[in-house]
Amino acid sequence: MSSAAAPDQPPRPVRFGILGCASIARKLARAMLLAPGAAVAAVGSRSEEKARLFAADNGLDDATTRLHGTYEALLDDPDVDVVYLPLPTSLHVRWATAAAARGKHLLLEKPTALCAADLDAILAACDAAGVQFMDSTMWMHHPRTAKMRDLVDDKDAIGDIKAVNSVFGFRANEHFLQNDIRVKPDLDALGALGDVGWYCILAILWAVDYELPKTVIALRDPVKNRSGVLLACGATLYWADGKTATFSCSFLTNLTMDITLVGTNGTLHVTDFVIPCEEKSAEFSVASKSNFAPLHIGWDPLPSKHVVTTDLPQEALMVQELARLVQNIRDAGGKPEGKWPAITRKTQVVLDAVKASIDKGSEPVEIAN
Amino acid sequence: MSSAAAPDQPPRPVRFGILGCASIARKLARAMLLAPGAAVAAVGSRSEEKARLFAADNGLDDATTRLHGTYEALLDDPDVDVVYLPLPTSLHVRWATAAAARGKHLLLEKPTALCAADLDAILAACDAAGVQFMDSTMWMHHPRTAKMRDLVDDKDAIGDIKAVNSVFGFRANEHFLQNDIRVKPDLDALGALGDVGWYCILAILWAVDYELPKTVIALRDPVKNRSGVLLACGATLYWADGKTATFSCSFLTNLTMDITLVGTNGTLHVTDFVIPCEEKSAEFSVASKSNFAPLHIGWDPLPSKHVVTTDLPQEALMVQELARLVQNIRDAGGKPEGKWPAITRKTQVVLDAVKASIDKGSEPVEIAN
Repeated sequence: MSSAAAPDQPPRPVRFGILGCASIARKLARAMLLAPGAAVAAVGSRSEEKARLFAADNGLDDATTRLHGTYEALLDDPDVDVVYLPLPTSLHVRWATAAAARGKHLLLEKPTALCAADLDAILAACDAAGVQFMDSTMWMHHPRTAKMRDLVDDKDAIGDIKAVNSVFGFRANEHFLQNDIRVKPDLDALGALGDVGWYCILAILWAVDYELPKTVIALRDPVKNRSGVLLACGATLYWADGKTATFSCSFLTNLTMDITLVGTNGTLHVTDFVIPCEEKSAEFSVASKSNFAPLHIGWDPLPSKHVVTTDLPQEALMVQELARLVQNIRDAGGKPEGKWPAITRKTQVVLDAVKASIDKGSEPVEIAN
Repeated sequence: MSSAAAPDQPPRPVRFGILGCASIARKLARAMLLAPGAAVAAVGSRSEEKARLFAADNGLDDATTRLHGTYEALLDDPDVDVVYLPLPTSLHVRWATAAAARGKHLLLEKPTALCAADLDAILAACDAAGVQFMDSTMWMHHPRTAKMRDLVDDKDAIGDIKAVNSVFGFRANEHFLQNDIRVKPDLDALGALGDVGWYCILAILWAVDYELPKTVIALRDPVKNRSGVLLACGATLYWADGKTATFSCSFLTNLTMDITLVGTNGTLHVTDFVIPCEEKSAEFSVASKSNFAPLHIGWDPLPSKHVVTTDLPQEALMVQELARLVQNIRDAGGKPEGKWPAITRKTQVVLDAVKASIDKGSEPVEIAN
């Protein structure tokens, strides 16, 4: 697994194994087919028949894709470099640590764990094995996100960030609300907080360059189903320097994906941050050093709209980035990139604090820095 | 003052008197010149010279505009139908009640009072005199607002509202932060909450069709100046049915004017609700019944952008609407329209609750319904 490619040969593709045929895995299989440097080597499911159906449904070449009828068999496949793991959250610790123990790099669906302690077990296993960890938050890899990052980092354009608001919700249908793993306490106990809230929390951390808040206070009146799983909730986050952020997330409202970031010098709006409305082109808008026009009858200058195009969808760019990191480890003796697990962990820590505040009836929860 | 116009004559213009030459009064003077059915009859200031300068600077005809060197003289002017009152908030009760007592209709700048009890004194005076009351919240009169109202009322398009977020901030310069009446405890003691927060609170009430929240909790860490006047703050509002709203308002951030309204069926975004970026044309966007595209690689349908044009700016439409109501009372024996003072009062009640929560260190404050 560690033989370097000859200098004049293209690098060998990084071979992904898909562990579990969740619905989201279809999008990832497509991404692996699109991403330069990546290949789908294997699919593992609880039955070989399910794996075969998944492969057939998703255009995977049955001559080159191995089909495994157990998760263990996929983990034991020596020709898999990276395991993509979209199983229910409650199964993450078991299968992610097992994958790392077999030397597999890891692409883990979010929420990555039921709590930060569980995530730490996964990250420790990855550290011990020297494998790359990345969570599957796709929008982090869109070139729009990089463009927005440049602007947010530009103290002249945006200045000091004072307030962030993020919303992610979608309207789940009755079938989802009765049957989806995300409303089942034994499968995805974090419900909407883990699924859609994850994105809001990460968006807020992204906006403040991953500085942890000091205090988290959940919004009152979170909505839960009969099993106690969250269907809608939110929180306010406070930083020591006076920054505040709010988010709300829901399975019960129309599709909404907002980041609003307000700084001393500028304001950024994006309304489809998780999944751009269109695959090849994504927008955001920025108002910078906006004044009232004379007599306060308008704005001067006007806000500006930015459009960022991309040939590859964000999930393929994510797979490509992970493949690049894995190639560097596998073929060039490199070390895992620590940035990705660090971001994941901070997200999970804040998510834990929101959950704790919800469980305490919206009492403040402090986060140790 | 009550003689009816002959049926075949155009209605006599409604004659506005401007009481105080505040900077905002320049915008209103222009609006009174633009608005059909309205005229500037008089300007009253603490000196006739100031009134003269104001008239000259704002294109008021000195043959037809009477200049008064005291506020009392303007109130005693029998040929003034409506007093526009842009004085500092601490002076509102005194001069607004005096105007009503002289039978003048009232256009009152916001915040309308330092507290709801003071506003009630003003509204009682207007009631007793049978005069029309309207606060000077201009965006309520933009045709975009009416268009958005239609959509919000359309249960198919937006559904039940679940969450509202509003932001209004601007970046005050050093001169403002040292000298403006809005940072002076004896003039506008409510600071940013009264000035920009007013709009956020009204926007939220507008979004929920003026249903009062049951509980208000201020965001922690409001920013105050050395005199204790608020420069930035916010709050979360809770309704009995589970709706929530948040707002933040500030003198310390880039110009931002957002309403984000999330319903079960749709989402509305407007990012310049207080003062449209451009005077003749204003936008908002709506996403309704938005689904993920297959494979979750986009949105279907896409959100839609709406553009609403207007020949008259919103402040002229406000003046026109007030003139229409006053004509109906003055010339046709009509009664004052109760809708406007009712909206004002609810806004002031919520503002009081936010202030109370701030003063109590972000404790919840209940609002009696």
